[in-house]
Amino acid sequence: MDEFGIIARYFAPLAGDSAFGLRDDAAILPQRAGCDLVVTTDSIAEGVDFFGFDPPAAIARKALRVNLSDLAAKGAAPAYYLLNLTLPATVTPDWLAGFAEGLAQDQRAFGISLLGGDTSATDGPFSAAITAFGFVPQGRMVRRGGARPGDDVYVTGTIGDSGGGLAIFRREVHSLSDADRDALIGRYRVPQPPVDFAGTLREIAHAAVDVSDGLVADLGHVAAASGVRVVIEGEQVPLSPALRALWGEQAVRRAVTAGDDYQIAFTGPPGLTGPFTRIGHVEQGEGAHVRIKGAEMVLPQKGYRHF
Amino acid sequence: MDEFGIIARYFAPLAGDSAFGLRDDAAILPQRAGCDLVVTTDSIAEGVDFFGFDPPAAIARKALRVNLSDLAAKGAAPAYYLLNLTLPATVTPDWLAGFAEGLAQDQRAFGISLLGGDTSATDGPFSAAITAFGFVPQGRMVRRGGARPGDDVYVTGTIGDSGGGLAIFRREVHSLSDADRDALIGRYRVPQPPVDFAGTLREIAHAAVDVSDGLVADLGHVAAASGVRVVIEGEQVPLSPALRALWGEQAVRRAVTAGDDYQIAFTGPPGLTGPFTRIGHVEQGEGAHVRIKGAEMVLPQKGYRHF
Repeated sequence: MDEFGIIARYFAPLAGDSAFGLRDDAAILPQRAGCDLVVTTDSIAEGVDFFGFDPPAAIARKALRVNLSDLAAKGAAPAYYLLNLTLPATVTPDWLAGFAEGLAQDQRAFGISLLGGDTSATDGPFSAAITAFGFVPQGRMVRRGGARPGDDVYVTGTIGDSGGGLAIFRREVHSLSDADRDALIGRYRVPQPPVDFAGTLREIAHAAVDVSDGLVADLGHVAAASGVRVVIEGEQVPLSPALRALWGEQAVRRAVTAGDDYQIAFTGPPGLTGPFTRIGHVEQGEGAHVRIKGAEMVLPQKGYRHF
Repeated sequence: MDEFGIIARYFAPLAGDSAFGLRDDAAILPQRAGCDLVVTTDSIAEGVDFFGFDPPAAIARKALRVNLSDLAAKGAAPAYYLLNLTLPATVTPDWLAGFAEGLAQDQRAFGISLLGGDTSATDGPFSAAITAFGFVPQGRMVRRGGARPGDDVYVTGTIGDSGGGLAIFRREVHSLSDADRDALIGRYRVPQPPVDFAGTLREIAHAAVDVSDGLVADLGHVAAASGVRVVIEGEQVPLSPALRALWGEQAVRRAVTAGDDYQIAFTGPPGLTGPFTRIGHVEQGEGAHVRIKGAEMVLPQKGYRHF
């Protein structure tokens, strides 16, 4: 099957009206009055962000969701995406059908549509770059640079589950129940970014970031962009029972550097309550630090390093 | 050097105001009143679209220009771009500096700026996916689907030069002067899309496409989208003296299927004159066909196939 056949068969059915059925060189990106258009782009590659044996629908959903997570952390509602696929010659029609079905499923779940893309062949592993577009009311994008001393620090969901799933794939010895094991693996394969939380986030957050490189590393980005020190109170970091069962006493230490969480960490006034957990506070100074039982936790590295 | 170091050192200097110095998860895409925002995305990969020994600045410029070509063919003026780089572990600081310098050079040449991107590591070859944004006056994007019987067909520049440069790299025997050889190789390495022609194109074209897969293949897309037959008059296809010297009697046949031209083919009313060449006409029917000396040229394949 050639590029045009692949596009017509698997991807054209995913395209919205302004994509012209993916039969043009370009698409028009519809604008919304009174809104800013927010754009982000993120790639995933076989052997780095997923395994070749992962189900193709899960790979597709992960490729999309790592981008939806970035939009959510900016307070933006997702609307459209572009897809650049780099396909090894060994790809099969079944695999492509599964991949497209994963996209279709998440398009329905999140109310988004495909605008366009590009497909090319490679001698190397499969990779997918997605560019996602969302809208925020004008001037309301939540930035990394808005944290101030006196803020508290909050995070959605639980931290470290995806890292636990990856550890299991890497053959870490464990005695989890099948349900706990599958829950952690599921979080690694298909992130659960809090897309619906974006509207609330815009109202309450001073600064926000999506947790992709690791909680400490990503809050370090907030600290750097804001010119403040972020203190994470280790005991407060929300961990799932499955992750505690996997990592025991090492759970906090490993969870805060694991990465691939695709939850939102944010700062705002003290005393906020909602579908999130208070995990620390903001001081004058610099960097992101974890304190546990009053002492600073020394971490070998603060998060995932790409190189 | 890690991802953040690479971004801060080589790419942050290329970013415009709304990219927040590439220190956020996302960027805001500025809108323009009275304009449609046009988006396109295209990747290039080592071993497919360029050679590993090509100068990094040329690779960067090609990655950008294959996208600027798509925008120009839609009548859009380029404004911003996103960059997804997939880097092998062997990449050096010198190579990255050269690549960034190529981007900087073309940003100045075309008045565009970097909005954001993503950098990831690979065990495979280098690749770059670029997403480019441009503006057209509302409702004025030139489509593939507007060709009608009675139109003439036109093309900017000359066709086949890039294919000639690639043939030379593939060790095709030739007796060109050094200047002719370098001219063809230069066209392969750094396309020359007619970006400044976009405004005129909007005024005169009924349908347009950028010539990337090959003149016959791309006019075939116009024919399919418009429901017409495109007839290319082989004698009229503009060829450079260097390409005629390289390919002799085979020049037309090879040029119309070579691809990688990044010129604009378009249809419009008969009798147009300007910085382009009339190469054929539109009839009722289907497909794109080449006639030479009154007979249809039989082509083994109509253009570059990605798989």
